[in-house]
Amino acid sequence: MEIKVVRKVLDVNDMMAQQNRSRFADEKVFVLNVMSSPGSGKTTTLVKTISRLLPEIKCAVIVGDICSTIDADRLSVTGVQVVQVNTDEFGGDCHLAAHVIGNAANSIDLDAVDLLIVENVGNLVCPAEFDIGEDSRVVVLSVTEGEDKPLKYPLMFRVCDAALLNKTDLLPYIEYDKEAAVKNILQIHPGMSVFEISAKTEEGFKPWIMWLKERVKKKLA
Amino acid sequence: MEIKVVRKVLDVNDMMAQQNRSRFADEKVFVLNVMSSPGSGKTTTLVKTISRLLPEIKCAVIVGDICSTIDADRLSVTGVQVVQVNTDEFGGDCHLAAHVIGNAANSIDLDAVDLLIVENVGNLVCPAEFDIGEDSRVVVLSVTEGEDKPLKYPLMFRVCDAALLNKTDLLPYIEYDKEAAVKNILQIHPGMSVFEISAKTEEGFKPWIMWLKERVKKKLA
Repeated sequence: MEIKVVRKVLDVNDMMAQQNRSRFADEKVFVLNVMSSPGSGKTTTLVKTISRLLPEIKCAVIVGDICSTIDADRLSVTGVQVVQVNTDEFGGDCHLAAHVIGNAANSIDLDAVDLLIVENVGNLVCPAEFDIGEDSRVVVLSVTEGEDKPLKYPLMFRVCDAALLNKTDLLPYIEYDKEAAVKNILQIHPGMSVFEISAKTEEGFKPWIMWLKERVKKKLA
Repeated sequence: MEIKVVRKVLDVNDMMAQQNRSRFADEKVFVLNVMSSPGSGKTTTLVKTISRLLPEIKCAVIVGDICSTIDADRLSVTGVQVVQVNTDEFGGDCHLAAHVIGNAANSIDLDAVDLLIVENVGNLVCPAEFDIGEDSRVVVLSVTEGEDKPLKYPLMFRVCDAALLNKTDLLPYIEYDKEAAVKNILQIHPGMSVFEISAKTEEGFKPWIMWLKERVKKKLA
């Protein structure tokens, strides 16, 4: 019975996600859903990513947290439109649902946007289950989290198109088998794009930015 | 309506949690619920903690993951009883519910156990909402996750009795304001016990082990 209820919630979400998808297609906006554990470096990665995309690709961000505007404040230094969603208004939700994205998008001037980035709530489990009408999904995984995460949280890696292996600047100081991590990612999602980056030093950003630009431009064309 | 359903699930959980609590009181078993983000170092911390408690405090572990037995395999080197719960049998649950703990405890010889440690699913959100009948809750937060997590995931820090600030061995290599992190923890939960530890080097373990031992012995007395 409990499962039945969850399915109903997910069915309603899928319907709302399709509405978002049609709307974003009409508006010619590419939507990127960025997910990860808390503290993987999503916000820093996005600040640096947006700085490299501007002014060629016009960006906006919807950022989800249970509470606080810490991430929105950090993202606002890029000068792009930022909407902070606090899920504690909906009972402390651990993910962003499609209707929340639909509402948040109403606060954004979509005419002035090519790429709408959604920084999801920090959680490697639940956000993977909720379609928000996005064009692409990316998971950020910091090397300090260990090599085994793709095997332990497989749905997240299955639903994402690319994995950003972040904080590579810390590799000299930790015991981390990068080959094993990439192997685990590819075991769960064969052919997945994997980018090794350091959001701090911006090492490895070029291929990631190229990958993203290519997809955005394809939709805008 | 969605909220009503969630409340019902939580009500049933609270009932099952009370059943667990009575049972663990009868059996004279102290139950510790350990929660954190994925990759904070819960398993390493527990392996080192158990090694220091044995043979004085007899331990057992219930470890929750969506799938895989990676953590159970790592914990089994301590020689204690370990039960791995894979929540993908219940739809990939992002937390351990009270009835799951009740079932898992049936596989453990509780007569031979003083301290039952529950290593919850890696998630800084949902596990905080589910009472499992534990005596104490602890959150592990690695310094690589940033100083702001208590402000962004306040419920977790509110429901826990102690915070383990882990991976302090990495402090020389990251920009981290430890004082700000502790201040944020205490802002959310005044008086909370905070232990700075490195599960890798075991630096800072003594006060944490003393804190835990004291609580276990008080219940066994």
